[in-house]
Amino acid sequence: MIGYAFMGAAHAQAWRTAHRFFDLSLTPELTALAGRSEPDVRAAADRLGFASVETDWRKLVKRNDIDLVDICTPGDTHAEIAVAALAAGKHVLCEKPLANSVAEAERMADAAREAAAGGVYAMCGYTYRRTPALALARRLVADGRIGTVRHVRAHYLQDWLSDPGTALNWRLDAAKAGSGALGDIGSHLVDTTQWLTGQPITGVSALLETFVKTRPMSGDRAGLGGVGGDDVPHGPVTVDDAALFTARFAGGAVGTFEASRFALGRKNALRIELNGSAGSLAFDFEDSNALHFYDGTDPVGLQGFRRIHVTEPEHPYIAAWWPPGHGLGYEHGFTHQVVDLVDAIARGEQPTPSFEDGLAVQRVLDAVGRSAAAGSEWCATAG
Amino acid sequence: MIGYAFMGAAHAQAWRTAHRFFDLSLTPELTALAGRSEPDVRAAADRLGFASVETDWRKLVKRNDIDLVDICTPGDTHAEIAVAALAAGKHVLCEKPLANSVAEAERMADAAREAAAGGVYAMCGYTYRRTPALALARRLVADGRIGTVRHVRAHYLQDWLSDPGTALNWRLDAAKAGSGALGDIGSHLVDTTQWLTGQPITGVSALLETFVKTRPMSGDRAGLGGVGGDDVPHGPVTVDDAALFTARFAGGAVGTFEASRFALGRKNALRIELNGSAGSLAFDFEDSNALHFYDGTDPVGLQGFRRIHVTEPEHPYIAAWWPPGHGLGYEHGFTHQVVDLVDAIARGEQPTPSFEDGLAVQRVLDAVGRSAAAGSEWCATAG
Amino acid sequence: MIGYAFMGAAHAQAWRTAHRFFDLSLTPELTALAGRSEPDVRAAADRLGFASVETDWRKLVKRNDIDLVDICTPGDTHAEIAVAALAAGKHVLCEKPLANSVAEAERMADAAREAAAGGVYAMCGYTYRRTPALALARRLVADGRIGTVRHVRAHYLQDWLSDPGTALNWRLDAAKAGSGALGDIGSHLVDTTQWLTGQPITGVSALLETFVKTRPMSGDRAGLGGVGGDDVPHGPVTVDDAALFTARFAGGAVGTFEASRFALGRKNALRIELNGSAGSLAFDFEDSNALHFYDGTDPVGLQGFRRIHVTEPEHPYIAAWWPPGHGLGYEHGFTHQVVDLVDAIARGEQPTPSFEDGLAVQRVLDAVGRSAAAGSEWCATAG
Amino acid sequence: MIGYAFMGAAHAQAWRTAHRFFDLSLTPELTALAGRSEPDVRAAADRLGFASVETDWRKLVKRNDIDLVDICTPGDTHAEIAVAALAAGKHVLCEKPLANSVAEAERMADAAREAAAGGVYAMCGYTYRRTPALALARRLVADGRIGTVRHVRAHYLQDWLSDPGTALNWRLDAAKAGSGALGDIGSHLVDTTQWLTGQPITGVSALLETFVKTRPMSGDRAGLGGVGGDDVPHGPVTVDDAALFTARFAGGAVGTFEASRFALGRKNALRIELNGSAGSLAFDFEDSNALHFYDGTDPVGLQGFRRIHVTEPEHPYIAAWWPPGHGLGYEHGFTHQVVDLVDAIARGEQPTPSFEDGLAVQRVLDAVGRSAAAGSEWCATAG
Repeated sequence: MIGYAFMGAAHAQAWRTAHRFFDLSLTPELTALAGRSEPDVRAAADRLGFASVETDWRKLVKRNDIDLVDICTPGDTHAEIAVAALAAGKHVLCEKPLANSVAEAERMADAAREAAAGGVYAMCGYTYRRTPALALARRLVADGRIGTVRHVRAHYLQDWLSDPGTALNWRLDAAKAGSGALGDIGSHLVDTTQWLTGQPITGVSALLETFVKTRPMSGDRAGLGGVGGDDVPHGPVTVDDAALFTARFAGGAVGTFEASRFALGRKNALRIELNGSAGSLAFDFEDSNALHFYDGTDPVGLQGFRRIHVTEPEHPYIAAWWPPGHGLGYEHGFTHQVVDLVDAIARGEQPTPSFEDGLAVQRVLDAVGRSAAAGSEWCATAG
Repeated sequence: MIGYAFMGAAHAQAWRTAHRFFDLSLTPELTALAGRSEPDVRAAADRLGFASVETDWRKLVKRNDIDLVDICTPGDTHAEIAVAALAAGKHVLCEKPLANSVAEAERMADAAREAAAGGVYAMCGYTYRRTPALALARRLVADGRIGTVRHVRAHYLQDWLSDPGTALNWRLDAAKAGSGALGDIGSHLVDTTQWLTGQPITGVSALLETFVKTRPMSGDRAGLGGVGGDDVPHGPVTVDDAALFTARFAGGAVGTFEASRFALGRKNALRIELNGSAGSLAFDFEDSNALHFYDGTDPVGLQGFRRIHVTEPEHPYIAAWWPPGHGLGYEHGFTHQVVDLVDAIARGEQPTPSFEDGLAVQRVLDAVGRSAAAGSEWCATAG
Repeated sequence: MIGYAFMGAAHAQAWRTAHRFFDLSLTPELTALAGRSEPDVRAAADRLGFASVETDWRKLVKRNDIDLVDICTPGDTHAEIAVAALAAGKHVLCEKPLANSVAEAERMADAAREAAAGGVYAMCGYTYRRTPALALARRLVADGRIGTVRHVRAHYLQDWLSDPGTALNWRLDAAKAGSGALGDIGSHLVDTTQWLTGQPITGVSALLETFVKTRPMSGDRAGLGGVGGDDVPHGPVTVDDAALFTARFAGGAVGTFEASRFALGRKNALRIELNGSAGSLAFDFEDSNALHFYDGTDPVGLQGFRRIHVTEPEHPYIAAWWPPGHGLGYEHGFTHQVVDLVDAIARGEQPTPSFEDGLAVQRVLDAVGRSAAAGSEWCATAG
Repeated sequence: MIGYAFMGAAHAQAWRTAHRFFDLSLTPELTALAGRSEPDVRAAADRLGFASVETDWRKLVKRNDIDLVDICTPGDTHAEIAVAALAAGKHVLCEKPLANSVAEAERMADAAREAAAGGVYAMCGYTYRRTPALALARRLVADGRIGTVRHVRAHYLQDWLSDPGTALNWRLDAAKAGSGALGDIGSHLVDTTQWLTGQPITGVSALLETFVKTRPMSGDRAGLGGVGGDDVPHGPVTVDDAALFTARFAGGAVGTFEASRFALGRKNALRIELNGSAGSLAFDFEDSNALHFYDGTDPVGLQGFRRIHVTEPEHPYIAAWWPPGHGLGYEHGFTHQVVDLVDAIARGEQPTPSFEDGLAVQRVLDAVGRSAAAGSEWCATAG
């Protein structure tokens, strides 16, 4: 695994836990962790349970005792690492967004396609697909339970930048992160809605906004923040604080999208609602064990959004865990990601989301950027 | 009063009820009701409590025993009636949207300005301003409790056209209604958010969609629907089923707007959320007695959206009604509208929303229409 | 009508409104209002729309121009007034609880039975039966949609006495009110659950508590409170602040009941949940337009409590009002009560809840009182 | 660890995970797992990560390489194992309820007191104390934020026995489980409310009910059920399906309690509400990352239950986990239990809940049983 901040901790927990609850054909071993600072990476490896460390990821991707490389670094490094790892014959799990540009993503998708021909697989970490409630939603859409999708309403609302005193970090630096709320959380909306509906987004009209243009600089640039005083030197925020767009899907649905880190009071409100001709679905990650389903075929007068507590053995992934009503948390999605990835590799099948799926997201993000730069004019997601 | 369908019933109940609960300086009398069909209007007058009827609104607006004309007809007739009534020295309450075009609305605003100089007042019926929870929200914004507004999230979701078998009615006819979901319910979003934030919308990027292009024709065109069979002749739907747009407000806020009659399962979900620098507010008309308030100045660790049950004597309009917790219904907003209108007239002050406010909404609706026609390009709300 | 405080205002609004929305065979006229103080009763009659006044209810019940007497006075006067009115051949609507003792209630039920033989009817005002969501719940139970009821969970939580500074009023005086939270709001729980389940309560084990034993005396004893200072003389609270009991129903269900005016933050939380062998129902008056229904026969994996927005024409009472999603308020239950009462009288049928039903509630309240006095020992509801 | 069913899996995950997220002074090692069947226990040890196995718990508690014994077996074995382990100088974590009788619990508490004198500690596994939202609730009560507690409303609702076809298992056998819903889930209510309020329960009036008296027998008696056919032989259910009681607390609060496995649609609804003189708190495990707090000192007109999303670094246990809004799941409470236990042992302090606390719960359960057997008569919790 390369990188060991927030995502590294989540991934490591998943690698340690998957085989304790699920029957895996292959048992993951946490062989090596890579990072630039030796003392830091060594401490992290001890904490996270890795057997060895590397300070140069290039060494890690070539080690013979490694079968799979898990990339948890900022987006500007994804392409180089992933391509190298695939070239070295390692399976790859790469955090989202896949890359910082369509060009990089295309290079990665090409590499993945080539590797897959040789039985080496790449997966992109759009983990919310593995939230049981969303996996159930996907099943219901696929089974036709909501009919033709007409409306997609997708919001990802956080508030951790709402305070102008919150310091700069790499996620606010376009060179490292590619974009702001758009790529960090908006990308989840794009992947999740394309996957849920089974429809690619064909075009968008967008607006990006940076509410706070400069922020205190901080020694700590690795984490999610840190607060600086008034006399601290300020640097520019080079990414969007919020991304708003309307979209059309290939199957005729229309969508409103909003990703923001300035929605005060909303902590991790990934909210998705689909309205179809036969039913509707609604989800909010702030109540992540529930899926709301409106069945338009229920008897008239008895229709209503039902709150399905997605903790039954019949629900995706749940049989491996606890009895009904005993909910799962954020990191379980990562464990399920490991389960599905390991399972696909063992079966010699392409895991999803593939790098191709990651590239499809990138094309939408790119169209959003172009539209916003061109006064919200409609931009097709060329592909 | 002119017109006696859905809105007529709501207005009549308000006129009958206001002085039973509120201390009004003037006591409303339901003098006359106008409609085209004599038997129908007479039956309606009996039911609604009007003392006399007219089959020509031109006669009604000239009667000496009438001080105020309440216009509850489709939008294509508003301008002519309102201008005539004001010219005849009658106060006017006109249902929303103010008109079907900016030109009409300008004519009405001009007439209203002129009349006001002579102590005759006009008001536009954006009733949701009188929902106690939204009136409380306005008070909190005005008091600075949420700081600078950054995000406006405004959805008005209904589903009564979701079934393609629902028959045509005047609300689906552009000639009568001007537009579809946009003018009928989107206009409420525009007025309510401009009023709540105190900021005009300066520009929009929009997308309109008509999911069902033709519908069964029906003898009944007055109401909200009626279902026709398969062999019934079909006619075209000439308005939008859904309107989606992003917007910028004069004070720097950005907004996402969505008005739809195809959001299956959402019945009258007027949802508004404001995220400011110091707090947030959220409202949903499907739970209309509640306002959700997030106070960013609460102690860290104790912050959360609080559900204010807006039924306390300290809340707007409530002291006149029931003890705490005994909620109000939809029509109470109309009663409050009467209270505020009568009160303004008695004090010789301009009631709000004025026709000027109604015109401001019209300009936004017009910009939405232009943007949608021009591939979502950004359109300023010329004013 | 006799009495014109909180309940009087609600009843008057119902009498004025019912025929405006519903087709009634008889049109109510507000003929006379009775109260002890002539200036007060005259002002109230003007406000509420009554044509004349009486300062002695004995005169009112004998007037030839009166067909129905509506009793909105404190409980200690119900029996005398109701019996006299029935004897005078007037239909009677009597506010709940029916009386302050089983003996009084028996006398009233006897009088009602006798009067009914002559086509004169009496009804007891347990209005919550007319809340559309609860009427829908009753329909679902009667249709077997939740199977055999096993659990009844009934709470009525208010908080208006939570502040020890709130002054004494008649509702805190056992001589006038009979009991405290028990009779005032607990009686609603008893009636509503017996009616919903179709099962009488057969026995209870109870606990009563008075948290604040003395309160400031106040000149204002008519309303819901008023706050006195520290130096104000105090008087004793002679009723319960909270009543808690467990119960058994004739059909095998067990129930927990709680009525309190000390549940800080709960304003009018009449909450009822029924768990049956085939489904469950949940209701909270603080979101009074919703009924939550769990259908145990839904496909496994898709079960969940669905929030039925009880605003569809298919729902009880709704067709007379507004389009879907446009909710009703507290007083609509009183309007529906008038509709059902007038309808029953017109058809020559016994309206429900009858005085017999009111007596059944009284027997449960009495058993609660006896159990609480006897260290919670099990007390059957003798009947 | 002894036992490896549902609780064993939860405990093992906690032991494996605690030191990956928290800084522990001691690092847990999963040395040995005990169970009666060698192949089964060996498979479980592999799955759960234990280094060795024992088929006789007596051997396990004497092994020199073991410092702490974690008891995850049915209640009838707790006393013998715990006393033996403490006698052998091992720290003990014992699942709840502490025992099947007061006598056993007293023996265990005595043993624990004696062991503690020698620096060997015992803890009882009332894990819900470690749910962050409830730990925050405890902090708020302790800080006086809700004033004097007046009402305790505690329900634990499940529905896994609602189907009469669900087979017998050890939890339905009084000899093994002691009691039914009462001990299994009602015990959590008792411990959690005594701990939250800081007040012991002084007496109760109770009612126990067994809705389904016989059930199919099943080969599988270890898990949570399994469904048998009609021709399967039936055996008696010897425990309660539901337990309802009212209670008084030492500080003057009154409480309603209900524990049921027949509340159809409620999966793991541990619901606790406290109403105090200054505020209220409400929690539902079905939305376990939220605590609802009503602050009676908020400005009048702005009071309301606020939903605190208990995922901030300021909240108990959260700083070790994910960013705000990324919720925790059921098993995290077990991890926190390990953290607090290890921490207490390392500091040489008594961990809580102690066996004394577990005994206090047992006394309440015993009073409930006595009261139910005596027609709900009031029973003091002798202690």
